[in-house]
Amino acid sequence: MLFEITDPDDTRLVLYRDVKDRDLTGRNGLFMAEGKVVLERLFTSPVAETVSVLTTPERLPGLAHLPDAPVYVVPQAVMDAVAGFPIHRGYLALGRYAPKQTLTQRVSGNRARVLVLCGISNTDNMGGLMRNAAAFGVDAVVLDETCCDPLYRKAIRVSVGGVLEVPHYRVDDVVGTLKALDLTPYALTPSGAMTLETVVPAARSAVLFGAEGPGLSADIMAACETVRIDMHGGFDSLNVATTSGIVLYYFSRL
Amino acid sequence: MLFEITDPDDTRLVLYRDVKDRDLTGRNGLFMAEGKVVLERLFTSPVAETVSVLTTPERLPGLAHLPDAPVYVVPQAVMDAVAGFPIHRGYLALGRYAPKQTLTQRVSGNRARVLVLCGISNTDNMGGLMRNAAAFGVDAVVLDETCCDPLYRKAIRVSVGGVLEVPHYRVDDVVGTLKALDLTPYALTPSGAMTLETVVPAARSAVLFGAEGPGLSADIMAACETVRIDMHGGFDSLNVATTSGIVLYYFSRL
Repeated sequence: MLFEITDPDDTRLVLYRDVKDRDLTGRNGLFMAEGKVVLERLFTSPVAETVSVLTTPERLPGLAHLPDAPVYVVPQAVMDAVAGFPIHRGYLALGRYAPKQTLTQRVSGNRARVLVLCGISNTDNMGGLMRNAAAFGVDAVVLDETCCDPLYRKAIRVSVGGVLEVPHYRVDDVVGTLKALDLTPYALTPSGAMTLETVVPAARSAVLFGAEGPGLSADIMAACETVRIDMHGGFDSLNVATTSGIVLYYFSRL
Repeated sequence: MLFEITDPDDTRLVLYRDVKDRDLTGRNGLFMAEGKVVLERLFTSPVAETVSVLTTPERLPGLAHLPDAPVYVVPQAVMDAVAGFPIHRGYLALGRYAPKQTLTQRVSGNRARVLVLCGISNTDNMGGLMRNAAAFGVDAVVLDETCCDPLYRKAIRVSVGGVLEVPHYRVDDVVGTLKALDLTPYALTPSGAMTLETVVPAARSAVLFGAEGPGLSADIMAACETVRIDMHGGFDSLNVATTSGIVLYYFSRL
């Protein structure tokens, strides 16, 4: 359903207004997607629905398929005025996060690969972690209470839409949740007892990452197999998203 | 050698003036390091010398060792005024890039691991690539003419000082250089003939990465073994720095 709109004050555009500020306030499960690649992932997402799309007459033909939702077509100047800053990519969409399965359902098979994040507050790292989760076929992402929201606009963008491929679930008791699901937990830490290449992952396994710097808590590590990545002599510093890429790649092959 | 300075116009501070602008202009091999971790890497760097340090009286005791170079100690307000923006981390240093060995010398052994970058213009990616090169013991980084400078302030920061651990060399003929050095080249590309886990790296090998999006040129790929990383079904998207982490980890074990 296409709707041409020329008035920036049209009430149908109200949820696109001042996108930057809106990103920081309560969103009731709504989120903002931007750019062609991310929009196309949204349209086919298994974890989210498309509420509406905002684009320009010039950019509209760039979308191979349109969703079963309102598509508002506005001049670029109206788009910029409504959003509150220049939308160079020419595409915005409003989505609603609505995963179809519970965490338990997602990991009910004989094989499971779960990514568990604790204290990841940096949106770039969150986006990178979700991108890798999607690339390596993680079944579910579990977040502790202190992680930032993967549905922040920037995290979605950095994930190249990975946030819209893999469902995430926030839990208040990480260790208890993994135990209840009967997943074998592997905690990544520089002081790990095993080096990564000696790990033979359990069929149903979870890999845990903490924030760069503080890492995982002692309580969590005590409940896990601990795994390290050996590095070169004097330099023991890897980005957490990069580390997840190495570990998820490794776990996806076995 | 400690020097207390209170006048922001003191001529000894001239090279710290307007750090942001200076980063973009010709620097004659000079670069700016910031933050405690990066400064401490600079002081022991095998590829750079410390020209001088700028810090505050409060931060000075935080440095475990001082270099054999002038250390200017100034009030925070003077530091911010000179630099042109607030230096929250409280540490700046001026360095001079001066690797002690040529590329040929660096890779003269029976075993060599070289990272080759083509068209990497994003400073975040450059920093991430250099961080991984340092973490996994790469002997040298080769840059084509279109890569951004790893000595940009932000690239150094993102690399957590990795830029100051591994020497980099800019060359105008990537393929010819690798051939002359008798390194076996492996090009990473989604269309690679081999999947990573089937590669048995040559003792003297180079891994090549292009920019996200355009990737490596057909000419370069034709001169290389081509390698891919298989990803999950519909999602084939990895960040180039993350990809380098996976590949350099893999190559460092064999």
